[in-house]
Amino acid sequence: MDIQQMTQKARQASRSLATLQTDIKNAALSAIASALHVHAERIFTANTTDLKRCEAEGLAQPLLKRLRFDREKLQTVIAGIESLIRIKDPVGETLLATELDEGLDLYRVSCPIGVIGVIFESRPDALIQISTLCLKSGNAALLKGGSEARETNQVLTEIINAAAQTAGVPDGWIGLLESRLDVNALLKCHETVDLLIPRGSNEFVQYIMEHTKIPVLGHADGVCHLYIDEAADPAMAIRLALDSKIQYVAVCNAVETILLHESQVDSLLQPLADALRQADVEIFGCERTCVLIGCKPVVDWHTEYLDYKVSLKVVASADEAIHHINQYGSHHTDAIVTSQPSLARRFMTVVDSGNVFWNCSTRFSDGFRYGFGAEVGISTSKIHARGPVGIDGLVTYQYRLLGRGQVVADYADGRAAFTHRPIESAFPQSD
Amino acid sequence: MDIQQMTQKARQASRSLATLQTDIKNAALSAIASALHVHAERIFTANTTDLKRCEAEGLAQPLLKRLRFDREKLQTVIAGIESLIRIKDPVGETLLATELDEGLDLYRVSCPIGVIGVIFESRPDALIQISTLCLKSGNAALLKGGSEARETNQVLTEIINAAAQTAGVPDGWIGLLESRLDVNALLKCHETVDLLIPRGSNEFVQYIMEHTKIPVLGHADGVCHLYIDEAADPAMAIRLALDSKIQYVAVCNAVETILLHESQVDSLLQPLADALRQADVEIFGCERTCVLIGCKPVVDWHTEYLDYKVSLKVVASADEAIHHINQYGSHHTDAIVTSQPSLARRFMTVVDSGNVFWNCSTRFSDGFRYGFGAEVGISTSKIHARGPVGIDGLVTYQYRLLGRGQVVADYADGRAAFTHRPIESAFPQSD
Repeated sequence: MDIQQMTQKARQASRSLATLQTDIKNAALSAIASALHVHAERIFTANTTDLKRCEAEGLAQPLLKRLRFDREKLQTVIAGIESLIRIKDPVGETLLATELDEGLDLYRVSCPIGVIGVIFESRPDALIQISTLCLKSGNAALLKGGSEARETNQVLTEIINAAAQTAGVPDGWIGLLESRLDVNALLKCHETVDLLIPRGSNEFVQYIMEHTKIPVLGHADGVCHLYIDEAADPAMAIRLALDSKIQYVAVCNAVETILLHESQVDSLLQPLADALRQADVEIFGCERTCVLIGCKPVVDWHTEYLDYKVSLKVVASADEAIHHINQYGSHHTDAIVTSQPSLARRFMTVVDSGNVFWNCSTRFSDGFRYGFGAEVGISTSKIHARGPVGIDGLVTYQYRLLGRGQVVADYADGRAAFTHRPIESAFPQSD
Repeated sequence: MDIQQMTQKARQASRSLATLQTDIKNAALSAIASALHVHAERIFTANTTDLKRCEAEGLAQPLLKRLRFDREKLQTVIAGIESLIRIKDPVGETLLATELDEGLDLYRVSCPIGVIGVIFESRPDALIQISTLCLKSGNAALLKGGSEARETNQVLTEIINAAAQTAGVPDGWIGLLESRLDVNALLKCHETVDLLIPRGSNEFVQYIMEHTKIPVLGHADGVCHLYIDEAADPAMAIRLALDSKIQYVAVCNAVETILLHESQVDSLLQPLADALRQADVEIFGCERTCVLIGCKPVVDWHTEYLDYKVSLKVVASADEAIHHINQYGSHHTDAIVTSQPSLARRFMTVVDSGNVFWNCSTRFSDGFRYGFGAEVGISTSKIHARGPVGIDGLVTYQYRLLGRGQVVADYADGRAAFTHRPIESAFPQSD
């Protein structure tokens, strides 16, 4: 099947998905969980094929670890599906209800977005999480996983699709893309695809954003900052700098630049540098930092290292720090360490980022840690969903107006008048 | 000032705007209302210049009427500003609050989008409405009005800017673009402009959407439908068809295609055609319609006439109608006339449009009629704001996490665990 046909089939399926009752969607999720359990050996076999091929091709150990799909990971995803069954259906919620006039009732009701394309890394568990999140939110899912996982992804998609269909989900709601060429074809389907969620390297996300008319939810880079204020507790500052930098260096919410208030230079710069270096972090400094602790100068304050490297700058004031963050950051996650509540509030208001933190590690910026369950991605866009995006980011809304034959002419000519009274009850889903 | 500088100045101003207290924004709105009142004669003089020039250039009467800014329109916009002062500040609202762990509190707080570019038609009152909506929602506004209104827009912008500044709003929060070249320059400023709202012709909006990386909120076309079901009341059907078509033909929420269930052909087709023709509406039909009532055939079901013209099609079922609407419509506003509640609900769920109506005119699809106060535009996008967009569409949110030095390593290594408990109180705006 070519990709355009796949998107059209997904579009058709999405019309039916939008009307599925919660119990049918939950039954489909249960069927998926059971089928994954029943077909576990088939999945592991496919995964072993992927692992062997990738090992032979010399894939690095950490990537092999992400690619591996074993009984433990299976249990984790099944637990995830079970918790997804328990959460409230995000579709059909009444978000606003206003009586425009007697017998003319307006409702803003949440509904699925439609057809969502997700391009993700080589973690087979991601395929399960994303497809089940889309199913619960009534969206058709077109998926492209890392090619390393192709056998596993193929088997998982077959199992998930077959199980969902037994519960009444229409065929076509899930589709698996297999190559970069498929992705390029998908980018052209703005008539049938409503949203793209690319996860992966900066360059890749940037490429997607520049080559499609489909709205894109995601982030290209994560240049996150930690500002250590005049009124910062030194021990806390060092602890947060370390965790933000090294708890996991290869991720978007790791800190790339530390900003230090100049009043802290005498007491804190050396211990901070020592702690970072002890953790094998290479420091790139501003002019003053280079002189004081002997390090290489920063090449570009926009740099996202994703490595045991960090930029370090001395600033004269909190305002300079805020200005630096707004200028060089990527509006992802930025934190302040200070004991001054009013400054912290100002920092959180003026820093123009999706996640703004006070006295905690930037690494908390994550859907699971936020309690959203699985996340489909992290958005640095300001439009629609921002920050870690859970199931709420997969729905939109429509206005439904229920009348008794009212015409606008009567209101335009003054024969009728709007009341605009709030309605207490939800959209009537049945008689 | 060149446009790039103007957007940078607006970006700077938007940082301060984001922190402005509600009472300062309201004081600025009051100052604007007073200044408009005080400088009324200056505005009228500028408007007379515009009117005389456009009359000499042969501008059509309806457009001259929209261009005219007289005492009555002044009073209407001042009343609009006064009601804007009374509405709740959309910024700083707590949308979600979760304790991640003891002393680690997450808040989702509404905040301005930042810098918004609005390109609108030749109604000077639109400039006032849009700029004050942006001010109340804490956004900087870059405005391009129709060139017909250039003198009036210039004077209005000066008055509004000066008045807002007396109340403490930073210079640069409002900027007026003067030419199409300025607009083209604006389209390139995706680093400094967060959202574009173009209002105007299909071609123009389409042009904007295709020539910028800035997110665009709006609609290119409005191909709206009225489906007259088997179970429709005939008198209501004709009344709604007429109002949807002719109450104002030149607007996006006027009906362009009427779909008639075949069981209604014998009794309703002729009276419907008579009523439309009596109102000077030319009918373009499907094959069957052409034979039965003698009319020209439809050329393209995608056509948006914006005129006293309508497409008419006989359909075999509600499903055919729904399918037609999803295929040929523009996802703007579509209505069903039926006495069957369950069918109406299905129609409203499966029709993939921002506004889905039951037994009322498509012309109700409008921010004022919905009770939103002024609207900045109508969106057919599914991402962010959909349907008529009031002040709520001008804000986004950010996550704010307040800690006491917590690090992720403790949670990753099992030394600490998330509680994920809802917090009852709002984000602490003061100590």
